Amino acid sequence: MKRDVYNEQVRKALAYFEKAHIVLTDEEKAAVEVVDFGKNIVDELGLQIVVYVNTEKVCAKEMVLLPHQTCAEHMHVPTNGMPGKEETFRCRWGKVYLYVAGEANTDLIQAVYPKTDVTVFHEVILNPGEQYTIHPETLHWFQGGPEGAVISEFSTRSTDETDVFTDKTLIREVIIED
Amino acid sequence: MKRDVYNEQVRKALAYFEKAHIVLTDEEKAAVEVVDFGKNIVDELGLQIVVYVNTEKVCAKEMVLLPHQTCAEHMHVPTNGMPGKEETFRCRWGKVYLYVAGEANTDLIQAVYPKTDVTVFHEVILNPGEQYTIHPETLHWFQGGPEGAVISEFSTRSTDETDVFTDKTLIREVIIED
Repeated sequence: MKRDVYNEQVRKALAYFEKAHIVLTDEEKAAVEVVDFGKNIVDELGLQIVVYVNTEKVCAKEMVLLPHQTCAEHMHVPTNGMPGKEETFRCRWGKVYLYVAGEANTDLIQAVYPKTDVTVFHEVILNPGEQYTIHPETLHWFQGGPEGAVISEFSTRSTDETDVFTDKTLIREVIIED
Repeated sequence: MKRDVYNEQVRKALAYFEKAHIVLTDEEKAAVEVVDFGKNIVDELGLQIVVYVNTEKVCAKEMVLLPHQTCAEHMHVPTNGMPGKEETFRCRWGKVYLYVAGEANTDLIQAVYPKTDVTVFHEVILNPGEQYTIHPETLHWFQGGPEGAVISEFSTRSTDETDVFTDKTLIREVIIED
């Protein structure tokens, strides 16, 4: 991702946090992570993240999804001798279209079909105050609704580097080009 | 606690969540827990809690402290073969006066001296966006600032029933009298 694109995504994310009345420290604002999965279509395929805490046991984050921006399908596998990450997504603002492994429960998903491989279609729609817990090694992907979304994540330790993506052309590592 | 006192504390807590722009479902609003430690001075010694999720591994809560309301000194000990709870407090609204084990770092604490035994005086002041991680078996107590506080807690599994209080006359169990 070019640095100016990265910085623009950070600005967009901070505007969402403001709309959602989520207060961040200056250090946190400066540390917003923008993920584009190496595809350079970050408004469609990507995610903005602020990590509050990530100890050996517990992680808490705040995430922003732009309108119809998709976080690619993946699952959390055992890492460093610990089970894969268990995570609860709680919608704070906007709307989240979440898809998890399990029987498809709709003929027509509400998300815009994403520009990456997806294979699970059990749809869960989260409005503000609603949440869903995803167990380890469960494939999932999610997308912001028409106005985007702000999502809190409460989980066991985050080890993003071992996430297993369905689309093998994706890269989780964030590479910024100057 | 008399039921009408309990219900009034719930109403106060919901007003704080509204001020902090924290959206709860109707089920969560109906499940606000009010703790008075069995002392019947809940505005001074007590706490209001909404538990979002509490799995075997991860717990997330939102807490309200009224102005100068104190959560009594306690620590989290090993329970059911698991280490004591590790918890991160993040101030979302207002101000928190937190006291943890360790060297006293002020001659005059900012909290109002509480109506319960306290023995630790390492002061940590949390404003919105600021947070602090408390490790297992670390004594701590905390109080809302002059306008109260809303606090998110991210932790390992909550097992409130095994909390060890410094003041042995306190009762963690909530008893509502009709």
